[in-house]
Amino acid sequence: MPSVNRQITLATRPVGMPQGADFRLIETPIPRPGAGEALIRVLYLSLDPYLRARMNGALSSARPVQVGEVMAGEAVGEVIESNDPRMGRGDIVEGILGWQEYAVAHAKALRKIDPQAFPVTTSLYVLGMPGLAAYFGLLDICHPAPGETVLISGAAGAVGSLVGQIARIKRCRAVGIAGSPEKVHYLTAELGFDGAVNYNQTPDLYAALKEICSNGIDVYFDTVGGPITDTAMRLINNHARISVCGQSSQYNAAQPDVGPRWLSQLIVRQARVEGFLVSQFSSRFEEGLRQLATWLREKKLHYREEIVEGLPRAPEAFLDMLRGRHTGKLMVKIGA
Amino acid sequence: MPSVNRQITLATRPVGMPQGADFRLIETPIPRPGAGEALIRVLYLSLDPYLRARMNGALSSARPVQVGEVMAGEAVGEVIESNDPRMGRGDIVEGILGWQEYAVAHAKALRKIDPQAFPVTTSLYVLGMPGLAAYFGLLDICHPAPGETVLISGAAGAVGSLVGQIARIKRCRAVGIAGSPEKVHYLTAELGFDGAVNYNQTPDLYAALKEICSNGIDVYFDTVGGPITDTAMRLINNHARISVCGQSSQYNAAQPDVGPRWLSQLIVRQARVEGFLVSQFSSRFEEGLRQLATWLREKKLHYREEIVEGLPRAPEAFLDMLRGRHTGKLMVKIGA
Repeated sequence: MPSVNRQITLATRPVGMPQGADFRLIETPIPRPGAGEALIRVLYLSLDPYLRARMNGALSSARPVQVGEVMAGEAVGEVIESNDPRMGRGDIVEGILGWQEYAVAHAKALRKIDPQAFPVTTSLYVLGMPGLAAYFGLLDICHPAPGETVLISGAAGAVGSLVGQIARIKRCRAVGIAGSPEKVHYLTAELGFDGAVNYNQTPDLYAALKEICSNGIDVYFDTVGGPITDTAMRLINNHARISVCGQSSQYNAAQPDVGPRWLSQLIVRQARVEGFLVSQFSSRFEEGLRQLATWLREKKLHYREEIVEGLPRAPEAFLDMLRGRHTGKLMVKIGA
Repeated sequence: MPSVNRQITLATRPVGMPQGADFRLIETPIPRPGAGEALIRVLYLSLDPYLRARMNGALSSARPVQVGEVMAGEAVGEVIESNDPRMGRGDIVEGILGWQEYAVAHAKALRKIDPQAFPVTTSLYVLGMPGLAAYFGLLDICHPAPGETVLISGAAGAVGSLVGQIARIKRCRAVGIAGSPEKVHYLTAELGFDGAVNYNQTPDLYAALKEICSNGIDVYFDTVGGPITDTAMRLINNHARISVCGQSSQYNAAQPDVGPRWLSQLIVRQARVEGFLVSQFSSRFEEGLRQLATWLREKKLHYREEIVEGLPRAPEAFLDMLRGRHTGKLMVKIGA
């Protein structure tokens, strides 16, 4: 076993779009697990847009990552030493392990994965946080009914791509907004979305959405915010439900952004907007994972992974993701 | 019986703050009721902020009032002729009768009032649309729990003043935002609010609200919108519920207004914003009115009326209301 742990820390707090120099690769001794803890060799690290928000000093969904600290992030790994009876050497576990090759974590904060059931990477995607966000954020917040139109921003992202497929399973019309022709093709040709719009190449997004959502929007699942959401709000139907999962268009904002006010529209449409964190559904994760696994086995959920090799490439891959350059769930293969 | 009906019509569609010249007093023949209709002599006309929204060409909560049409508005009156078995001469009824001395309406669109039970003006206030908006908009949208802090914008208005009192009945802390020292005094000294802030004379509304809502805001009942709401949103607690009843700060806007985006705050706080129209609760009006009447009889709800005499004074009184110059429910006494 090597004695050195490589880690990526937050070197400087970015203002606006982060750069490679905001991250630093360092070498530290491999930590020792304390009582109730386990030492994990990280296999795959998940890169998700919400991590950009955690790089800011302001409150995001969790405590900001401090300058000098290891970047936060979910990962799946193998237990190589455990001081807790719940975990043993060789177990595969998922948790918030950070951008590093080895991590120590409390056993109770880890989720044990069965590597025989599904590829371990699914624990970071369909059978992990993105899957649970799609499942609870769509079904519990929005209660979509058969025949309703469900619009999804960031639709080719890890969460959005699952939201559209779950909407289809629930016999809704799924319409996606994405940022490239490849993504639009992926949504409609591979994932079965009923329609998709490339906001980057649509001169009039309102007109395009109005045409494709010809019965209006009953449910809007938002991972992006900003002008895309402003446009969607103009097309909501009476009793529309809007689930706010992320606001990726805002995470890089150096100044607080402004936009048109639309609370009057909520009154006229008797509509509801609700923000959520996956963690608020933690008591029901088992239910969600069981259902997602069933759909995965039945081939009702499809997914695509983009896997980058080696921890040192994580910052560059993350920055590419923020620029919209990936189609599919982005992960970094570290120790597999 | 006079043969002439006086009416106030919309003369021009206002841009920005309306003026007296936007209204026109005209004389027309008293209309005849058709089948299923009744002719009503109007006693009191209700003036409410949402009517400003209906003067705009854009969709508000109902079809815009067209130029040349009688201004919309709720009123209570006496049936003087009826072609429907449900109504008889002398009955007191409430409905959307408009700014006029005589109105013809479908009997099924009218609500019969018992003038012995309460003063007939209560049918336009505590036992009418504002009371129902407060009752359902607070209790059904927000589910306030004992000990929670309920913040109300436009708190001295017809709806807001009832929301705060219902919040107190439900053992919440009620905090109001209003626009004059008289209103603040009315809320705290007469209506029993736990606290109130005059936004017009508070240099730092955020600091003032933070102090007075020392445990944060669990429920926000919004009738105003704009910068007041932006400030309230910064202080919401986890799982906050925001009921959007009106947006009086926006009705006069000549251009669509912009403001800071706060959807990220909804995520972090796992909070919900819901707009509503009183009409969506119509199947439960009886329940609401029964409870409001009980509270009124038990002297748990207090109210203040401001009554202006004569239809010709309606426009001026309405404009004063938009400028915040009234404390208490504004009505025009027409034919009493």
